[in-house]
Amino acid sequence: MTASSALLTRPVIQPLSVLLEAPLKAVNACLLEKMESSVPLISQVAGYLIALGGKRIRPLLTLASAELCGYEGKRHVHLATCVELIHTATLLHDDVVDESALRRGRLSANAKWSNKTSVLVGDFLFSRAFELMVGDGSLDVLSILSKASSAIAAGEVMQLTSSHTLNLTHHMYMDIIEAKTACLFSAATHVGAVVADAPLHSQESLTRFGRFLGLSFQVMDDLLDYTACQDSLGKSIGGDFHSGKVTLPVVLAYEKGIEPSFWEDVFEGEYRSSESFAKAIPILEKCGAFDETKQIAKTFVEQAVKALDDFPESDLKNALCDLAFTSLNRKA
Amino acid sequence: MTASSALLTRPVIQPLSVLLEAPLKAVNACLLEKMESSVPLISQVAGYLIALGGKRIRPLLTLASAELCGYEGKRHVHLATCVELIHTATLLHDDVVDESALRRGRLSANAKWSNKTSVLVGDFLFSRAFELMVGDGSLDVLSILSKASSAIAAGEVMQLTSSHTLNLTHHMYMDIIEAKTACLFSAATHVGAVVADAPLHSQESLTRFGRFLGLSFQVMDDLLDYTACQDSLGKSIGGDFHSGKVTLPVVLAYEKGIEPSFWEDVFEGEYRSSESFAKAIPILEKCGAFDETKQIAKTFVEQAVKALDDFPESDLKNALCDLAFTSLNRKA
Repeated sequence: MTASSALLTRPVIQPLSVLLEAPLKAVNACLLEKMESSVPLISQVAGYLIALGGKRIRPLLTLASAELCGYEGKRHVHLATCVELIHTATLLHDDVVDESALRRGRLSANAKWSNKTSVLVGDFLFSRAFELMVGDGSLDVLSILSKASSAIAAGEVMQLTSSHTLNLTHHMYMDIIEAKTACLFSAATHVGAVVADAPLHSQESLTRFGRFLGLSFQVMDDLLDYTACQDSLGKSIGGDFHSGKVTLPVVLAYEKGIEPSFWEDVFEGEYRSSESFAKAIPILEKCGAFDETKQIAKTFVEQAVKALDDFPESDLKNALCDLAFTSLNRKA
Repeated sequence: MTASSALLTRPVIQPLSVLLEAPLKAVNACLLEKMESSVPLISQVAGYLIALGGKRIRPLLTLASAELCGYEGKRHVHLATCVELIHTATLLHDDVVDESALRRGRLSANAKWSNKTSVLVGDFLFSRAFELMVGDGSLDVLSILSKASSAIAAGEVMQLTSSHTLNLTHHMYMDIIEAKTACLFSAATHVGAVVADAPLHSQESLTRFGRFLGLSFQVMDDLLDYTACQDSLGKSIGGDFHSGKVTLPVVLAYEKGIEPSFWEDVFEGEYRSSESFAKAIPILEKCGAFDETKQIAKTFVEQAVKALDDFPESDLKNALCDLAFTSLNRKA
């Protein structure tokens, strides 16, 4: 076999969104339907959020988990929609808490309407998610997703409390991202396995996959907030820094004792200037904090992929592993 | 029988909180437990909210409904706690939306901490309510309370949209208070009857009782925002007026064509002064809008009480009717 023919026969990994095109379309239709309301402002905000799109990673995880466990019904579409509704509700509230003006390259809902609107429409979407879950009728699913929801809220409060806190340890940082991000990723894969009535060990493997994928996603998100190009990130770069949110690169640098007084001046003050952001980047770069952060994300990805060891090879499994690996090289 | 002996033998109506002292104590203990968290800020806010107290009307309605239907178990305590958790979460978010600085005579949580804290702790309590409901395990209860939650959020968005809108009709006003207030009152009585496994007609009667009681409570709340004394109300009087919220007294006056340009000037502007509030009161008083508002609340109370016709006389039934009637004369 020549090198070029080997290249031709190398399996092409289809992304999840292609492999799951039909159920993902059904999720988008279900989202539209559930976000609809007789109250015009709710419909406007919902329509705007749907138009903004997003990668739909969490609902894809639910769909993929269910199908990887051999599920052939339609319930996974409803549960994937619940997961995305919860995620959308938390985004609306996060943008209020973070005072974000941009989301996916366009005005965030709080900037376009108001914080009040985002709070209330978030509540509406969250309640809708529960209505839809109740309609599905599985107490197991309700238990997983209600626990994930309170973990997310608790994680967000932890993060709010630790704002401006340079004594945030690596361990505390992990607790926060476990709660605010990994919990919904793992709930997403878990409910997919539950709806497929998969054996307990498969449910556990998929839950672990979701958890480690969520951890790596959040670590990469926090890295990209320093290293991405603003256009590709779709939100303001440096958002965490400017709002005083201490994330992993800074935790690592500060724990190493790199320029402590710079970080103290910067994070203990009320505002952070563009100049101090521009100064922070080479410090983090030079001391290896960016590399180390990426290495931590990579370790999580490896653990995620390992969690799927017991599943036989399939296009879907390859696509899930590929999603994990490509998340390390994403630009946004 | 002399007049004085008749007076002596007249049945003394014990308030609900006395008749239901033991389960109400259990609700308060359960609230404390469910609002507890390993995240210190959540525990602080929760402790503050519990110390603020409140009348616990909604959980009392759940307890009373269940016991009126002969329920003798303990599940009603958990469901009453869920109802109060949902109510507390909506209060936290309402105070953010209304920019309220006072709640029950003390600083509101958003004023004491921040809007961000109130948004996130509200989300936490809301999720906790669902976790507790899931633990109870009744899909009927979950359905009633998740529907009520999305109705509340939709009602709050409707109210936000209709702010500064003098064309708000009597009918639209009723739609708003039905959703934002009456839905949780009726859900509270409904789940009480459901947990008692009461026959359908009793469930419907108690749901109707809750609904009309909720409507009368909200109408009286909106009246008291103009007519109460600030100390007894426990929050700033004129809050609705100053925030541009058009409520029933103003709807009635404007629909009658009383001083239209005064109302237009006042509600279409960005701010409303204390002077214009002081001018509004005698206008509303003189044109009969206050009397008419109270009359509407009275009609709701009568409908609430009538809904209990089929229940035999009992201390509990008397206490429920008494709660309805005394709500008309409350000062706060």
